[in-house]
Amino acid sequence: MGMTMTQKILADHAGLDKVVAGQLIKAKLDMVLGNDITTPVAVNEFKKIGVDKVFDVNKIAIVPDHFTPNKDIKSAEQVKYIREFAKEKGIVNFFEVGQMGVEHALLPEKGLVVPGDVVIGADSHTCTYGALGAFSTGIGSTDMAAGMATGEAWFKVPEAIKFVLKGKPGKWVGGKDVILHIIGMIGVDGALYRSMEFTGDGVSHLSMDDRFAMANMAIEAGGKNGIFEVDEKTIEYVKEHSTKPYKVYKADDDAEYVATYEIDLSQVKPTVAFPHLPSNTRTIDNVGDVKIDQVVIGSCTNGRIEDLRVASEVLKGRKVHEDVRCIIIPATQKIWKQAMSEGLFDIFIDAGAAVSTPTCGPCLGGHMGILAKGERAVATTNRNFVGRMGHPESEIYLAGPAIAAASAVLGKIGSPEEI
Amino acid sequence: MGMTMTQKILADHAGLDKVVAGQLIKAKLDMVLGNDITTPVAVNEFKKIGVDKVFDVNKIAIVPDHFTPNKDIKSAEQVKYIREFAKEKGIVNFFEVGQMGVEHALLPEKGLVVPGDVVIGADSHTCTYGALGAFSTGIGSTDMAAGMATGEAWFKVPEAIKFVLKGKPGKWVGGKDVILHIIGMIGVDGALYRSMEFTGDGVSHLSMDDRFAMANMAIEAGGKNGIFEVDEKTIEYVKEHSTKPYKVYKADDDAEYVATYEIDLSQVKPTVAFPHLPSNTRTIDNVGDVKIDQVVIGSCTNGRIEDLRVASEVLKGRKVHEDVRCIIIPATQKIWKQAMSEGLFDIFIDAGAAVSTPTCGPCLGGHMGILAKGERAVATTNRNFVGRMGHPESEIYLAGPAIAAASAVLGKIGSPEEI
Repeated sequence: MGMTMTQKILADHAGLDKVVAGQLIKAKLDMVLGNDITTPVAVNEFKKIGVDKVFDVNKIAIVPDHFTPNKDIKSAEQVKYIREFAKEKGIVNFFEVGQMGVEHALLPEKGLVVPGDVVIGADSHTCTYGALGAFSTGIGSTDMAAGMATGEAWFKVPEAIKFVLKGKPGKWVGGKDVILHIIGMIGVDGALYRSMEFTGDGVSHLSMDDRFAMANMAIEAGGKNGIFEVDEKTIEYVKEHSTKPYKVYKADDDAEYVATYEIDLSQVKPTVAFPHLPSNTRTIDNVGDVKIDQVVIGSCTNGRIEDLRVASEVLKGRKVHEDVRCIIIPATQKIWKQAMSEGLFDIFIDAGAAVSTPTCGPCLGGHMGILAKGERAVATTNRNFVGRMGHPESEIYLAGPAIAAASAVLGKIGSPEEI
Repeated sequence: MGMTMTQKILADHAGLDKVVAGQLIKAKLDMVLGNDITTPVAVNEFKKIGVDKVFDVNKIAIVPDHFTPNKDIKSAEQVKYIREFAKEKGIVNFFEVGQMGVEHALLPEKGLVVPGDVVIGADSHTCTYGALGAFSTGIGSTDMAAGMATGEAWFKVPEAIKFVLKGKPGKWVGGKDVILHIIGMIGVDGALYRSMEFTGDGVSHLSMDDRFAMANMAIEAGGKNGIFEVDEKTIEYVKEHSTKPYKVYKADDDAEYVATYEIDLSQVKPTVAFPHLPSNTRTIDNVGDVKIDQVVIGSCTNGRIEDLRVASEVLKGRKVHEDVRCIIIPATQKIWKQAMSEGLFDIFIDAGAAVSTPTCGPCLGGHMGILAKGERAVATTNRNFVGRMGHPESEIYLAGPAIAAASAVLGKIGSPEEI
């Protein structure tokens, strides 16, 4: 029996020729990540371990992105604490306000993750880097502490589900719609502790930004990780962004999968996840009449340049509905500047949208657009759990940037075809 | 005995030929303003009054700018409450996220205040509009409620202090430096319940943005209001921004002033107010070695286009110091877009600064850059009281945009001459 992409990466990083699903292994880490919520706890745990140095000053990234620019004294204290830790330990990749971005958009852009890497991050959406053909998964602060100290982590080798993507997505359908479609199909525990392995001819029709959005939400199906087969687009992206050596892992032909799904991308419709689960999906032709108060376009899922381009295409020459606040949050400073230079901000501002500095902000109810009781938001973020974006009686509808932008114009959930 | 500018405006609005300092009068209001902190309280009080309608749907402005885009559930609830009130009462000038700006930058830009107006606002820096030759003063939420109901307010006619401005300010000296110089000279209660009346040949050398910054800080000397003599620049500004009728009031030659100061603008140096009072000023050649953690360029004092131009001139081709977060907050959407189109944002982003959507945010410790214990900020804001921008043991140094931008590069308080 052969190995999956994930299993091969893990075997190599454990110094083993072969691993099997369920096996406990200790793997070397190429990157250990934390943010402003999780790193303070990890630093406390690190101090208990009793080592002086981190395992590698170049293989740790600390990104204060959740409550930054600091929203209150508590968040300011947290960032101060981890800033001082990073300085003391000589950690190279600490990203300050002004160089900062949403962690999962920032690390690939900075070339800190490449194909074949093993990455752990004290943030559930660390699975994003699977888009690059890396094994990448969210862990807790204690594991982050151990990872910073030793450069290793224990894993149970996951079983895998194979997603064979075919065909080409239609207009207004992006990676977000595909992953929402999949989560709607298999459920929020449909891939529990399994790797979601994306392959097939259809992958070539997905941009890197599409793939990031899809891998990002593997955790929303319970996946241990999501991972894409590396192709020319991946290599092109990596060469443009990184100087790190990389290694491409392909699944063996006889790799074992607990399930295989074929997804015809040409049949996927724009999809919206209704409250209060990412699996509670409806296609856009079936959303009914849902008035909204806010639209958020951004986050580690859909705050990248292509997402902003799609939003601008929809908003161009149009106005945000008078009952809607539309908040657009480019995920990194680089994306921010790129969007500006392409004229996207002119379109956004003329439409009556607000453009924020990079932050996770509203996605997790942090800041920059929190909802009051009874308010509804369409968001390109990744979770619509009860109270995630504010009041427990507010509602979040997850969608891609095309639907989000169209909904901002319509004042209710809808498609670009309707405006 | 003649009347001052302020006294003449108040007499006219009270339907009287003449008023004298100390007299209690009831004046008609041209504009009643509130923000997201003060308006909810005012709405509660308004409801107690028992009238159905506001006095004039065009003469009330509600600007949720302090904690917006909503930083938490509480602020979201507050804005929802006043949004619903504005809608119910048909208040025209409610400014949503996306059309929003810092109130005292927004109202003049929208043409809602013109020379000769009487304006009350439930925000202490409502005195800003004195730059336009209006009488404008901060009041409490209860007065805002009464103002919304009746269109009138009681005032005690203030005594006046005359500031005769002469000469032309040097390079890197702006209105902020002049007003800090004045507050340093007369103290934070130096103009208590008096109008600060700015006149003299030197006024012509101050741009409207300089004048807004100066009138804005009249309250920091305890002033009831600050007011500038109207000149060609004022008229040009008003014609560009407003279609409202206006009236120019000049002080009588025999108007009475409790004090007169002559200020030679050419002798004013860049000035910094040290913690914890705006009057605790030092000239830039006397600041010593003060390391800083953050720079904020924005606010109702210095978030206007000229402020951003000055900051960009300093930051162009330079980098923000690695130990500094530099947060730049254009005060309105219009200023935001103007700054972008002039290429200022390219300079800011290349320098490593963050550019925020318009908000009062950090100035009042609201959000968007709150300070931790022991941290120091140079800010172009207006108050450096203990804990104003975050932790009670943090420190705020008030300055104009030139000093703020230079300090961001230096990592310590300094002048553009030093970089």
